Amino acid sequence: MEFVINNECFNKAITDVSKAISLKTTLPILSGIKIVANRDGVILVGSNSDIVIEKVIHLMVDDEKVLEVYETGIVVVSAKYLSEIAKKLPKDIHLRANEKQVVTIQSDEIISTLNGFHSEEYPRLPQIDETACIKISSIELIDIINQTSFAVSKSESRPVLTGVNLSFNETHLSCAATNSQRLAFREIPIETDVKGSFIVPSSSLNELTKLLKNEVDTIHIFVTDNYIVFKSKTVSLFSRLIEGNYPNISGLLPKETKTIIIMNTNQLLKGIDRACLFANEWKNNNVNLEIKEGSKLRISSNSTEIGKIEETQMIKMIKGEADFSISLDGSFLMDALKAIKEEEIRMSFGGPMRPVLIEPLDNPSQLHLISPVRTY
Amino acid sequence: MEFVINNECFNKAITDVSKAISLKTTLPILSGIKIVANRDGVILVGSNSDIVIEKVIHLMVDDEKVLEVYETGIVVVSAKYLSEIAKKLPKDIHLRANEKQVVTIQSDEIISTLNGFHSEEYPRLPQIDETACIKISSIELIDIINQTSFAVSKSESRPVLTGVNLSFNETHLSCAATNSQRLAFREIPIETDVKGSFIVPSSSLNELTKLLKNEVDTIHIFVTDNYIVFKSKTVSLFSRLIEGNYPNISGLLPKETKTIIIMNTNQLLKGIDRACLFANEWKNNNVNLEIKEGSKLRISSNSTEIGKIEETQMIKMIKGEADFSISLDGSFLMDALKAIKEEEIRMSFGGPMRPVLIEPLDNPSQLHLISPVRTY
Repeated sequence: MEFVINNECFNKAITDVSKAISLKTTLPILSGIKIVANRDGVILVGSNSDIVIEKVIHLMVDDEKVLEVYETGIVVVSAKYLSEIAKKLPKDIHLRANEKQVVTIQSDEIISTLNGFHSEEYPRLPQIDETACIKISSIELIDIINQTSFAVSKSESRPVLTGVNLSFNETHLSCAATNSQRLAFREIPIETDVKGSFIVPSSSLNELTKLLKNEVDTIHIFVTDNYIVFKSKTVSLFSRLIEGNYPNISGLLPKETKTIIIMNTNQLLKGIDRACLFANEWKNNNVNLEIKEGSKLRISSNSTEIGKIEETQMIKMIKGEADFSISLDGSFLMDALKAIKEEEIRMSFGGPMRPVLIEPLDNPSQLHLISPVRTY
Repeated sequence: MEFVINNECFNKAITDVSKAISLKTTLPILSGIKIVANRDGVILVGSNSDIVIEKVIHLMVDDEKVLEVYETGIVVVSAKYLSEIAKKLPKDIHLRANEKQVVTIQSDEIISTLNGFHSEEYPRLPQIDETACIKISSIELIDIINQTSFAVSKSESRPVLTGVNLSFNETHLSCAATNSQRLAFREIPIETDVKGSFIVPSSSLNELTKLLKNEVDTIHIFVTDNYIVFKSKTVSLFSRLIEGNYPNISGLLPKETKTIIIMNTNQLLKGIDRACLFANEWKNNNVNLEIKEGSKLRISSNSTEIGKIEETQMIKMIKGEADFSISLDGSFLMDALKAIKEEEIRMSFGGPMRPVLIEPLDNPSQLHLISPVRTY
């Protein structure tokens, strides 16, 4: 195997696939990057037990030659050392591998050799049927992930809750995440011939949003029995699916509402942030909300030993009972408010022990549900 | 005590004095900031067993009123909670303390109260004789600290080596730091009537450089038996001195030189950085330097299991024996090269087991000494 590659392209590709590589892998070969040189491009692969990231470098990028392949071949080489060397090299990188898996990396007057792994031992990629696929813009995909994935459970006690539930029907893609104390839900219209409901680990989706951050592209989504694949022009992310049945979201939505208020999203976020001051003092990051004089929201929290904080904010609109008080986990409320881009939100209360529904005003495609905290 | 203070000034002062406050203090009151309101200003104090930082906020800053004191007084309040509250407040901050040490912090519609400490329990500041002082520009002071303090010992086995030795005579201030494997030395001309040699903890000096980073000011230095004080117009840092005798630097300097070479500082730094690739594979971060063909420097390192790296750089000038090879701790060499601003350096070798002397070309006020590493 032998090729000469543009420094910046090679480093970007190494950084991208390294996101899938864990230093603490039990299978030593997975600490390596698989490099496949073909006549028409070089493919880098990094993987762990949950995800596989594959990056293609074509011969030309934006009409500029970035790669010349002299000899095709496959090699697997330490991700850690390859990335450390490559980022410190000044110019184009000349990479060779001999039949003994010794990889020589040269740039200018600098020569490094690394002992590679036997590439035959590298796990095979899952096979994907590319006929049925869903198309979505990378920007929309990042948006719906960011607006929901924070709500997954951090505990492994119910594995399905550590994932985000992606559901496709003919007209819509919906994303839901819950840790059973709070729920985030978002829906967008798409056209697809794929139907079904899949639970994707939130860690995979978070890696995906980082990978796609600077790409404006159409993402193709494929699904097999065990894997979901997100594919742009140059990068593919394969994620393991979580097995099991996801809870029925519609059953969780409150049926009755006693009080509805409309608040300024950003102002409320700042107020809750301040009220979270004594956050470390409790297990549940308690913040108290109380409607005062029918037109103001009093936000407060206190710690007997340290002190207290309170403020009042104007309610934009109120409907229903005006005498109301509830305690919530302030960090859950902040997460929900951060996920809402709209200027105003509607909060619907069913009672002090009923979950609060938070929705952007004039946008029925997103909702957040937060269960109250008992205070005694 | 009662005053209204500009948000930005108050936050900056809290951040500055908080640098001296440790969360893991055994004396609870030292987790607090002491606030002293006088008619002509407010003083904030933060301290731990090694350093005290005192910040003065005057009534006016740049002809703008930033502070109004309604009632003088003293209070000590949790640094953690005060700083978290203050940075989230939107406008001018109104601070009051009552006779029960309850501190009320108000801004706009937001009110917070914190339970304070009894201010009488706060340790007294060391008394300084302000008649004898050394004056130095903050920029020069930061420079000489940054060029030496990295070389101190990280181990507490010889406490004097964890400090930087500041020596004043009539005409010069010199700074020296060593961990007994490497030494950094810098000298600058100053005029002073203070004489003596003091060992200052490197941690204090590092805090000092952070404090003074954005201040262009003349720093006044005072010394007492146990403390050294660095004072600008608005901020003072008191540091404990380390007791003991500092090693005699001049005795360490090599007397004989076999080979002298001149190299480009930045290019050599980059080469050593690359050669440090396998740094984690050894206890001493070994990098081998070898003179080749009388005109080139070969920089290399290798690890039998992983691989190797090497490069050659042009020597600008060579004097003495041209057949030479030595192994050094690459990270020590990088630290020394980073401390040198000049474009070229002179390296003087006395033999493969003698320390290497590194000096900026055309600047006799700075030197670095690094002992070689045995390779077998």
